[in-house]
Amino acid sequence: MFAKRTDLALEARELWQESAEKTSRLSGVKAAKTKLEGYPLTRVEILNEKGAQALGKPPGSYLTLDLTTFWQRKADFFERAVRAVGSQLKELLPSQGPALVVGLGNGAMPPDAVGPLAADSVLVTRHLIAAMPKHFSGFRPVAVQRTGVLGTTGVESAEAVRGLVAEVQPSLVIAIDALASRRVGRVCTTVQLSDTGIIPGSGVGNHRAALNRETLGIPVFAIGIPTVVDAATLAADLLEESGITDIDEEKLRSSQQNLMVTPRDIDAQVRDLAKVVGYGINWALQDLEIEEINALLS
Amino acid sequence: MFAKRTDLALEARELWQESAEKTSRLSGVKAAKTKLEGYPLTRVEILNEKGAQALGKPPGSYLTLDLTTFWQRKADFFERAVRAVGSQLKELLPSQGPALVVGLGNGAMPPDAVGPLAADSVLVTRHLIAAMPKHFSGFRPVAVQRTGVLGTTGVESAEAVRGLVAEVQPSLVIAIDALASRRVGRVCTTVQLSDTGIIPGSGVGNHRAALNRETLGIPVFAIGIPTVVDAATLAADLLEESGITDIDEEKLRSSQQNLMVTPRDIDAQVRDLAKVVGYGINWALQDLEIEEINALLS
Amino acid sequence: MFAKRTDLALEARELWQESAEKTSRLSGVKAAKTKLEGYPLTRVEILNEKGAQALGKPPGSYLTLDLTTFWQRKADFFERAVRAVGSQLKELLPSQGPALVVGLGNGAMPPDAVGPLAADSVLVTRHLIAAMPKHFSGFRPVAVQRTGVLGTTGVESAEAVRGLVAEVQPSLVIAIDALASRRVGRVCTTVQLSDTGIIPGSGVGNHRAALNRETLGIPVFAIGIPTVVDAATLAADLLEESGITDIDEEKLRSSQQNLMVTPRDIDAQVRDLAKVVGYGINWALQDLEIEEINALLS
Amino acid sequence: MFAKRTDLALEARELWQESAEKTSRLSGVKAAKTKLEGYPLTRVEILNEKGAQALGKPPGSYLTLDLTTFWQRKADFFERAVRAVGSQLKELLPSQGPALVVGLGNGAMPPDAVGPLAADSVLVTRHLIAAMPKHFSGFRPVAVQRTGVLGTTGVESAEAVRGLVAEVQPSLVIAIDALASRRVGRVCTTVQLSDTGIIPGSGVGNHRAALNRETLGIPVFAIGIPTVVDAATLAADLLEESGITDIDEEKLRSSQQNLMVTPRDIDAQVRDLAKVVGYGINWALQDLEIEEINALLS
Repeated sequence: MFAKRTDLALEARELWQESAEKTSRLSGVKAAKTKLEGYPLTRVEILNEKGAQALGKPPGSYLTLDLTTFWQRKADFFERAVRAVGSQLKELLPSQGPALVVGLGNGAMPPDAVGPLAADSVLVTRHLIAAMPKHFSGFRPVAVQRTGVLGTTGVESAEAVRGLVAEVQPSLVIAIDALASRRVGRVCTTVQLSDTGIIPGSGVGNHRAALNRETLGIPVFAIGIPTVVDAATLAADLLEESGITDIDEEKLRSSQQNLMVTPRDIDAQVRDLAKVVGYGINWALQDLEIEEINALLS
Repeated sequence: MFAKRTDLALEARELWQESAEKTSRLSGVKAAKTKLEGYPLTRVEILNEKGAQALGKPPGSYLTLDLTTFWQRKADFFERAVRAVGSQLKELLPSQGPALVVGLGNGAMPPDAVGPLAADSVLVTRHLIAAMPKHFSGFRPVAVQRTGVLGTTGVESAEAVRGLVAEVQPSLVIAIDALASRRVGRVCTTVQLSDTGIIPGSGVGNHRAALNRETLGIPVFAIGIPTVVDAATLAADLLEESGITDIDEEKLRSSQQNLMVTPRDIDAQVRDLAKVVGYGINWALQDLEIEEINALLS
Repeated sequence: MFAKRTDLALEARELWQESAEKTSRLSGVKAAKTKLEGYPLTRVEILNEKGAQALGKPPGSYLTLDLTTFWQRKADFFERAVRAVGSQLKELLPSQGPALVVGLGNGAMPPDAVGPLAADSVLVTRHLIAAMPKHFSGFRPVAVQRTGVLGTTGVESAEAVRGLVAEVQPSLVIAIDALASRRVGRVCTTVQLSDTGIIPGSGVGNHRAALNRETLGIPVFAIGIPTVVDAATLAADLLEESGITDIDEEKLRSSQQNLMVTPRDIDAQVRDLAKVVGYGINWALQDLEIEEINALLS
Repeated sequence: MFAKRTDLALEARELWQESAEKTSRLSGVKAAKTKLEGYPLTRVEILNEKGAQALGKPPGSYLTLDLTTFWQRKADFFERAVRAVGSQLKELLPSQGPALVVGLGNGAMPPDAVGPLAADSVLVTRHLIAAMPKHFSGFRPVAVQRTGVLGTTGVESAEAVRGLVAEVQPSLVIAIDALASRRVGRVCTTVQLSDTGIIPGSGVGNHRAALNRETLGIPVFAIGIPTVVDAATLAADLLEESGITDIDEEKLRSSQQNLMVTPRDIDAQVRDLAKVVGYGINWALQDLEIEEINALLS
């Protein structure tokens, strides 16, 4: 079987279902669908090691928000998306303690820029609280890290984050990154939140050392947006849809491995979604309404 | 038949050969292969309307330089590429008269940025010659235009260029743009030079009004680098390789139309190739060696 | 006397008053002060050639909005500033016809970036109206030009604008540029609107060919924000304040000529004011409220 | 007396000499002038606490290279400057061990961008040596950190560097920053090297926690380039030159405190000098000639 690559728990579950006998049951995994602020929400819970092995993801909660209708720009599409992301994130997060928000990826490459761009919309308060504690007593301390690109730093993102965590001593990390999806329809329409950490660069670059409670010693919440489809995965799907099932995985992977498939207007889409994520983080951490965030960021 | 999309005359000829009976001959088109500075060069001449119709390109010369080995970074790979581009361009160009170099595309989107990035490596001399004619008597007047993106200007590239041509009155235009290829192997390994003008945005955006002698009143030389493969074309090729020939073009096009396939490290590749193009233009226009260009651009 | 340099009509009038005998009257110039949306507004009208000679500015209206209190960020400071700029601009402008908005200056140099940054907040509609006239029937056609820097184009801003005006045929031009002030207190606290055109680069670079009705054939409205103080002017003021009146102008100018004085956080200040200007232009041209502009720009 | 602000040991010594009685001797400080690659070099050694107090700088070596003639662009001006910076730096540095190069400052503000821009010209090797130790055995491990701006990170540069030093464990830090000078003639014509560490943000921002052996536990070498003159210092100098000696320091400081004086073409000057610094670091750390650096960075 062709091992399709996905960073979404939702898709990992779909893949399991496609591959498994109809009669078998996926034990150790619970899933539920609902709606939030008009956007469909799927919650996948990986309950134990059995579920983790089946889906190839660590145990924990994976919330997937479907923002397909965001692009129709109906009434309050932006505010509803922010509240949907913000309220789900708030449920996952501990209710207090300083936070470090990490924007992973390459700001100069649109399909990899969702992390640094979202970081630009996050209210940075740590230094203000330190300098004027009375003035900013209503805020939760937030620091922001943009890890940059290995080729221009020589340092893995996980190392850089670990170093800063040791120095800044936050209670939690929120890491934002671009992901790879296996369905074109999920690219730039999906936000995945999880409490299980993240492996940087899954979307665009190579797999790297993980950011999670094991490596950092504090809980790591991940916000991922699929911005690319693996060219090999896209090809395999197309071939399967055409009835070809004996796909030479090795050959397909090697011919397509350095390619990514991405929307033509990826820069505008990523910019808009990054703002949703940044505002959602402010909503969750600071209990601020969107108007207030606007005023503080201007 | 699935109408594969390509901006390369080389590929248009290949497509014609694939589709035509082996015994038929492509009249009105001449092609020849050679080597230049160690890089393979294919020259396709479209001699008349018959050839133009067969290949879907206007009559003229199309030179395609294969820079695949550029990425192996063997001795003088950069200098050889500059001289290869520069010497071929010099043959096409009139030997004197002021030039306007137009960098088409979106500098913020790596697969569309080859035009603006190449423009940044072009020696701009028009204002210097006007201000200090004696000092700069050895230089050919060169102005540079970066047309930007329709969504942020409201003006088609062809309109913007026509307006500046009327004002600046150059003898010729050199237009640089990203192209689409139908083969992954040609992406970021190919430079096409032609004397037939260009339709901006073929590579990444939509087709636009042409830049050519008809629309501008002066000869337009085009330098194009394929940076993307059409996702639909890639899919069709993959399906054909797998023996599927009855492809539902309509369906494939519509499902993939907003997608592009591009290398993962497109930013670094485009930056290097844009420098080759910019230096090649300086080589052709100013008769400067690479060391001299380095000194003048620093 | 030391010829102090200023781009502000307000300051030219002050300089005249300082230099003239108390008893003389500045004929050909009318001035009035009022308040608008909480911000002080000075209107200087240069009525004839006599006034023009006295102030060194062409006849016309010069409105100077004092945004000093903008930086205190009191209630609705941003919305009030937008409405103040927008309503004054609307009074100056003809009530219909397509507009070309020109962002002058160098986007990479914060004290010179107010033009290109403001342009980024202008709703670009010309291409949308052309493509979907019914959908966008409620909008006035607006195109945007960013002229860039002479050293990287070889083309004077005035040439580039004239070329595009000939092609796009707007009814009016709105040109935005950084200015020089002679008082530190006016830097990044002042917006000057006028109906007399502009000489690009007054603030940061050298004087260039003018953009006005004479050179472009259509009315040119200028929006200028002082972002720098001439170092020589600052020095002369300091010396005068200290009682030194016999200033060796030649020497002072030559020692300080390549210097500019600018706030330390010029980048943040310019970004905020450029947004006020861009939104003010939308308010004036499209009759849109700020909420609507926000939604359209997101 | 007006406490003039300078980051240059050279100027601190000049100030001491101006203020002190002609007969007194500055004990604890040694100074010598020479020439290197055609550029004047001043070496100030602060030998002990007495010298440190007199000059307001910690004991150590301060090398000041005068690049005034760099801008005349005579033969090999760039190569000579690189060798001059590189050879002096090499003398200061331990001859082996991994290095962390820190680019301090704000890349979006030209007078503050010398650190991040120089970092872009530094060969990053740490990750390559880790991945392919045989291939890169001839290189010294170098990592690069760009600390960004407090307002967008919430983290002091010194904290961020300390965190990464703990993780990456380099033998030494080289920190690059913009400085303030008290003489206009030294702006963008001077490079100061020292083995005493640095206080980030001296040039443009506020004083911050130091980077030095005490705070980081390893030797910190600083490379500073003055890019601004304090407006208050400039004013005080002008007033003194005009014979006014009873300057109201308090008043002058407060009226000018948020201003900086900088060359009009600061962006081009900083870009060129940052490249000299980056190449000089490669020369010192990797024993590479300029041609080799060019090839590796392309």
